[in-house]
Amino acid sequence: MVRLAPGIPIIDITHLVPPGDVRRGAAVLAQTVPYLPSGVHVAVVDPGVGTARRAVAVEAGDHVFVGPDNGLLSWAVRAVGGARRSHRLEARELWIHPVSHTFHGRDMFAPVAARLAGGLDLAEVGPAIPVDDLTSLPEPVSRMRDGYAEGEVLSADRFGNVQLSVRASQLSELGVNSGDTLAVDLARRTLTVPFRETFAAVSPGELVAYVDSAGFVAIAVNSGNAAQRLGLPPGAQVRLARFKDAFTR
Amino acid sequence: MVRLAPGIPIIDITHLVPPGDVRRGAAVLAQTVPYLPSGVHVAVVDPGVGTARRAVAVEAGDHVFVGPDNGLLSWAVRAVGGARRSHRLEARELWIHPVSHTFHGRDMFAPVAARLAGGLDLAEVGPAIPVDDLTSLPEPVSRMRDGYAEGEVLSADRFGNVQLSVRASQLSELGVNSGDTLAVDLARRTLTVPFRETFAAVSPGELVAYVDSAGFVAIAVNSGNAAQRLGLPPGAQVRLARFKDAFTR
Amino acid sequence: MVRLAPGIPIIDITHLVPPGDVRRGAAVLAQTVPYLPSGVHVAVVDPGVGTARRAVAVEAGDHVFVGPDNGLLSWAVRAVGGARRSHRLEARELWIHPVSHTFHGRDMFAPVAARLAGGLDLAEVGPAIPVDDLTSLPEPVSRMRDGYAEGEVLSADRFGNVQLSVRASQLSELGVNSGDTLAVDLARRTLTVPFRETFAAVSPGELVAYVDSAGFVAIAVNSGNAAQRLGLPPGAQVRLARFKDAFTR
Repeated sequence: MVRLAPGIPIIDITHLVPPGDVRRGAAVLAQTVPYLPSGVHVAVVDPGVGTARRAVAVEAGDHVFVGPDNGLLSWAVRAVGGARRSHRLEARELWIHPVSHTFHGRDMFAPVAARLAGGLDLAEVGPAIPVDDLTSLPEPVSRMRDGYAEGEVLSADRFGNVQLSVRASQLSELGVNSGDTLAVDLARRTLTVPFRETFAAVSPGELVAYVDSAGFVAIAVNSGNAAQRLGLPPGAQVRLARFKDAFTR
Repeated sequence: MVRLAPGIPIIDITHLVPPGDVRRGAAVLAQTVPYLPSGVHVAVVDPGVGTARRAVAVEAGDHVFVGPDNGLLSWAVRAVGGARRSHRLEARELWIHPVSHTFHGRDMFAPVAARLAGGLDLAEVGPAIPVDDLTSLPEPVSRMRDGYAEGEVLSADRFGNVQLSVRASQLSELGVNSGDTLAVDLARRTLTVPFRETFAAVSPGELVAYVDSAGFVAIAVNSGNAAQRLGLPPGAQVRLARFKDAFTR
Repeated sequence: MVRLAPGIPIIDITHLVPPGDVRRGAAVLAQTVPYLPSGVHVAVVDPGVGTARRAVAVEAGDHVFVGPDNGLLSWAVRAVGGARRSHRLEARELWIHPVSHTFHGRDMFAPVAARLAGGLDLAEVGPAIPVDDLTSLPEPVSRMRDGYAEGEVLSADRFGNVQLSVRASQLSELGVNSGDTLAVDLARRTLTVPFRETFAAVSPGELVAYVDSAGFVAIAVNSGNAAQRLGLPPGAQVRLARFKDAFTR
């Protein structure tokens, strides 16, 4: 990118998304982009590299996203207002040759992004495709039920904090306030977890639920690793209620 | 930061401090800052984020430090000459809103640091607080005893090299020279360790004591991981002597 | 480097080379440099730091490499056309003092590289040494045999993909084409592995052989970690043949 667009500032966000974890990549991207300057964003979590999956550039808000069309970009695109136009990467003269089958980040996405950052029009990267044809990850599922909220584990960060698909506003609807106790119903057990503003409101080693910096309900262990402690994989189902209203079964 | 202070150079030092390890963060910061250009330094190891712990900006030497007032900044502040003035972060109009309870690095420290780097006066971030009121981590303890030096494990780096609180000058006082053998007394055992200038002065797999790049005595395994081998947590007590003078007990 | 050469752009490639793994460092450097702008490249994987091993600056192609003379630079130097001239780092006034015995990256390599990037002539860093005297890592061994190719494991990346020393062209010579099945002969077992263009051509969890982005044959597990699965350390011997021609023994 430095060779193709000298002087263009580059920000390196993260290399810590677990290999092949498209959902985690999508979540990190969507939660980061609103804080970034307008620009061209390359994202590559691409287990299908070299197959028929499309490579795309998508314009949304003040941003352009470049990456595989496997859903990785979809939550970020929505977070900044939705796709206005999208093009499939097919203009091979913009790529680095020979093009490898397994490192499109280097040979295709980065050089195209560099040229876009340098002023190339989106239409030059390849044919337009309807924005409704872009692959979307299913939105994280969460539903209000009678007296509880139902959702799933979205992902865990490097601290082991477990982000759920339930939003702060849904807890408010249930009448849960900071200081209350939450009943957290997992597959085979129900935990009672204090709902607080931050980790350190409970003693080290204790579980705590809180609203995280993306507006989702999350579960942490103060000075510990909740993902390891609870063994909750992404996609695991959870139900949240005020402790005093908790589901009986 | 790029949005708030465009064009200001940003150096990304490390994201490898273990979660919540304020002492390790303080050590890395103190040992790095003397090599950095003057500027504004953001440091965030912040297990108490969102609690009553203060957020501060501290001027010391040619540097300004921004972070939680939990001791993280204290060793670096001392390393560059001590605090000249300090202010509590309270000017909410400088922050990014809504302010999360668990990610002050994003919502408070980074934007304030960007504005300071852009020329904002320290006094604008909030009310002055006496520099003597700043939280300090206890200095690493080391003492000269009769024929030996007593100290503790400061931290281990990613190579597994174990940094002790004993300084090179203290070994000199004991008459230990490179080439000598050191008696290293741990909780339940005494090791005899060659004291050399560098790792590779001993065979692969062997223990070696040396003066590390911060001037502290450290213990390594050549081509190996001393922290794992010895199982020495930060804070563990150690005593060092010339082997021929070694403590009897 | 920022202090000594303000305004010079710095690209931070990786801090993920395993401690002391000179071969992996050499492979990453050699496979990255052809994609970088011309410039000064500092590389430090330096288990012999502080010993008699030399510190060098080597000019090759449009590039200058600065680092320990332990072979780390050798594959990259060859990849960009071979060394034109080389100098031993001896001009102590270019270093940062006091010079530690264990962190020449900070005290010697980085400051010398910064001054070279700022325009210092290579001859100023210390006396010339013949380029033939530079330490070279042995080239990865691979040989064509009667009906098979013989090579070794070069390294594994963070995805667990195992790079072999056998080149794509050698498989072509054997008449192996994408879509064929490969017989992969390891120390104590023979695997039959589909040879495909990319990971996702096989089902998740399945082994696949492919030509990687550096032109070497590699073995991966789709959505998994082949290095862990196969337990193949760098240097392990492998033999590759078309399945239907496979070696009998």
